[in-house]
Amino acid sequence: MSELTPPQETLSGLIAAGMSVDLAKFIDTLSPSETARVIFRLTEAEQRSLFRLLSPEDAADVIEEMPESQAADLVEDMPTGQAAAIMGELSSDQLVDVLGEMNKNASRAILAKMDKDDAKEARMLLEYAKDCAGGLMISEFLAYQDDSTIQEVLDDLQANRSKYHDYHVQYFYVVDGAKKLVGVLRMNDLLFPERETRLAEVMISAPLHVSDKATLRELEEFFEEHQLFGVPVVNETQRLVGVVLPNAIEEAINKRKTKTFLRLSGIIGGEEFRTMPLFSRSRRRLAWLSMNIVLNIIAASVIAMYQDTLAAAITLAVFLPMVSDMSGCSGNQAVAVSMRELSLGLVRPGELIWVLAKEVRIGIINGLVLGVLLGGIAFLWKGNPWLGLVVGGALAANTLLSVMLGGLLPLLLKRVKLDPALVSSPLLTTVTDMCGFFFVLSFATALLPKLGGI
Amino acid sequence: MSELTPPQETLSGLIAAGMSVDLAKFIDTLSPSETARVIFRLTEAEQRSLFRLLSPEDAADVIEEMPESQAADLVEDMPTGQAAAIMGELSSDQLVDVLGEMNKNASRAILAKMDKDDAKEARMLLEYAKDCAGGLMISEFLAYQDDSTIQEVLDDLQANRSKYHDYHVQYFYVVDGAKKLVGVLRMNDLLFPERETRLAEVMISAPLHVSDKATLRELEEFFEEHQLFGVPVVNETQRLVGVVLPNAIEEAINKRKTKTFLRLSGIIGGEEFRTMPLFSRSRRRLAWLSMNIVLNIIAASVIAMYQDTLAAAITLAVFLPMVSDMSGCSGNQAVAVSMRELSLGLVRPGELIWVLAKEVRIGIINGLVLGVLLGGIAFLWKGNPWLGLVVGGALAANTLLSVMLGGLLPLLLKRVKLDPALVSSPLLTTVTDMCGFFFVLSFATALLPKLGGI
Repeated sequence: MSELTPPQETLSGLIAAGMSVDLAKFIDTLSPSETARVIFRLTEAEQRSLFRLLSPEDAADVIEEMPESQAADLVEDMPTGQAAAIMGELSSDQLVDVLGEMNKNASRAILAKMDKDDAKEARMLLEYAKDCAGGLMISEFLAYQDDSTIQEVLDDLQANRSKYHDYHVQYFYVVDGAKKLVGVLRMNDLLFPERETRLAEVMISAPLHVSDKATLRELEEFFEEHQLFGVPVVNETQRLVGVVLPNAIEEAINKRKTKTFLRLSGIIGGEEFRTMPLFSRSRRRLAWLSMNIVLNIIAASVIAMYQDTLAAAITLAVFLPMVSDMSGCSGNQAVAVSMRELSLGLVRPGELIWVLAKEVRIGIINGLVLGVLLGGIAFLWKGNPWLGLVVGGALAANTLLSVMLGGLLPLLLKRVKLDPALVSSPLLTTVTDMCGFFFVLSFATALLPKLGGI
Repeated sequence: MSELTPPQETLSGLIAAGMSVDLAKFIDTLSPSETARVIFRLTEAEQRSLFRLLSPEDAADVIEEMPESQAADLVEDMPTGQAAAIMGELSSDQLVDVLGEMNKNASRAILAKMDKDDAKEARMLLEYAKDCAGGLMISEFLAYQDDSTIQEVLDDLQANRSKYHDYHVQYFYVVDGAKKLVGVLRMNDLLFPERETRLAEVMISAPLHVSDKATLRELEEFFEEHQLFGVPVVNETQRLVGVVLPNAIEEAINKRKTKTFLRLSGIIGGEEFRTMPLFSRSRRRLAWLSMNIVLNIIAASVIAMYQDTLAAAITLAVFLPMVSDMSGCSGNQAVAVSMRELSLGLVRPGELIWVLAKEVRIGIINGLVLGVLLGGIAFLWKGNPWLGLVVGGALAANTLLSVMLGGLLPLLLKRVKLDPALVSSPLLTTVTDMCGFFFVLSFATALLPKLGGI
């Protein structure tokens, strides 16, 4: 295999030749993102062959390196038995992440064919909302009874060394007979006391913990307040059920930001990758676009109402899209600031007056500056001061309006439990388009005798 | 203090009364985001008084809970001596984060008044780019010489218990006489061997590590590939200089996503909060808007060129903004998918042909669907099939063009080292506006006899 062969071709070749061992070895040489990239450049038939050729362990390694939605698509298309064998090799949190992206029937079928204990745990974890402590915690942690001795803990650590290798052992948790969380120990608390000491004597009692229903926002605040490397999670009966690592919180925030970014850009049906089937990509994009076409028609109908004015002063047609676009940009800036302040907790959804007071001032200043600028250009171009007044006045008024609306929209949408990332921008654009057209054309209608013939 | 008093008022009252102890106690009852919120609702004079009243430790606690750019603004405005006292209370990574947001002169002046060792370390960390291993690592880690015995390590742990309390002690690092990294130990590796054993005998030799110049992308791949709780960082002479935690990587990715989101929305001068001074907020937003006005003029000039056609078929004015807006939306979807695939490493900046092939198909399908839709509406509205043809044809052509351009732009910008988040959207909008206007008006010019009088 020459060095010039791109990984795709090498991989296709190995698949065609059915060389399982070489395949696994070759994939092992690729970085995670390379692996994801080459797998998704394969045809569907090649993908199927690949996963038939790999052992479940190797297949699971590949699955781990894909974005979750891609992994879920792949696994969904496999025979259930094969899927269950591969999924059985994933860690509990990865398993749940991938199952969570599948449709309910597919994930149920796979769980039915998996190891009973693994499946039971996965079902428990799947019941939690993704963005609460229960959905974010890991179940690989070390917990001991409060009447164990340090020697017993050390013996257990010694005996299960390889099993615990991947555990996060910054802390040991101590539980009572009913598995309720009663204490926590740092690893080095085990080093110094007499080995016959019971954990209850050396542990930190009544440790910090969170409920399994704790929201992402609460967990974020928890880790901002306490510089810890993990927090134990208890259910409503105070039983220890898992541990949330700060890493998981950052990752969840990351996912939320990705979703916000995609939704703001009109990718609203979840992630889209170019390796997904053409028609589903096209259909999902169209769903959003066809809603937008309706909003556009509503906005443009304002122009239709003022057709006579426009015909009498055709130059205005040049300024219509400029006024509406510019105000849209101003409004989107205000939307972004509100969304950012909301996500940091610096503003609460009820503080409409405060936001309004802040944005009105910006709206007046920026409206005047932009209005004078565009109005001046219009005046210089056609030598008609009234045209400058119409265009500049419309831009100033519409900038003020859209900045106010942009600032308030995310707060209002949050209050009625709509996602600002999804709704703010199309709503804002429609309103600022309508109002932009209306201001230009109604001002022009009032001053039509002065504009005649431009 | 009644329960109904909002925290702002309580805080203002305590500041006016100059009650330092009560102030510190009151702030302690607030959550981090509440603290940040109330501090920034204070007037500047109140903020100054507050930080004069608090001890440096308490002030540092407050600083920790603010977004970094806000914290930097606050500290910059303090007398240097006071700022240095407060900054001395921050951990090394927080200190560097806040200093990094200040202007060079201010941060230099503060460092000059700080403890010499702290300042030296901070200067070293500040020299690293923010998004490389050196800028992301912590310097609080445990390292021992390879010829130390386990007993010596235990004695050190015992003696410095309180100092090490906030350390991340998932791993111990082992260095040779020249401070070069030679091994790593997990905490529980200390529990079992004889206490006279030398670390060199039990450590894992030649451990995984990264260079202090490693990029964020490389670190991301590292933690994707290795499920570790931290990685040691070495400089060019293989000396151990710090430890990067996976948490820091996720946080850095988070910050990058926030920046992308803000830039996409036209907040380009860094973060904006409504507590910042009015004129600097207004000026920063205007900088972006005035560039946009130029782009808008370029696009709208196409309409000016076709004024006669428009006057002869004034109904077209209704469809101009619709065609350009709709294509802009289609193009932005393609931009988002490209940016997402680039950030995941699923596509490389050079793979223009692959992206183009994928987007052309979407562009043809969605262009046809949207074109037939809008063309049909135009036809039904005015009863003129030629109008439908002009409008629908223009939308179809412009959708295809903008989807192709949107898919390619992020890759092209990446190749010339421009930020896609900053440049894609305004460039795309300008081109799709221009072309949208051009398609509608040039098709209409060609078919003008058939359109007459609509």
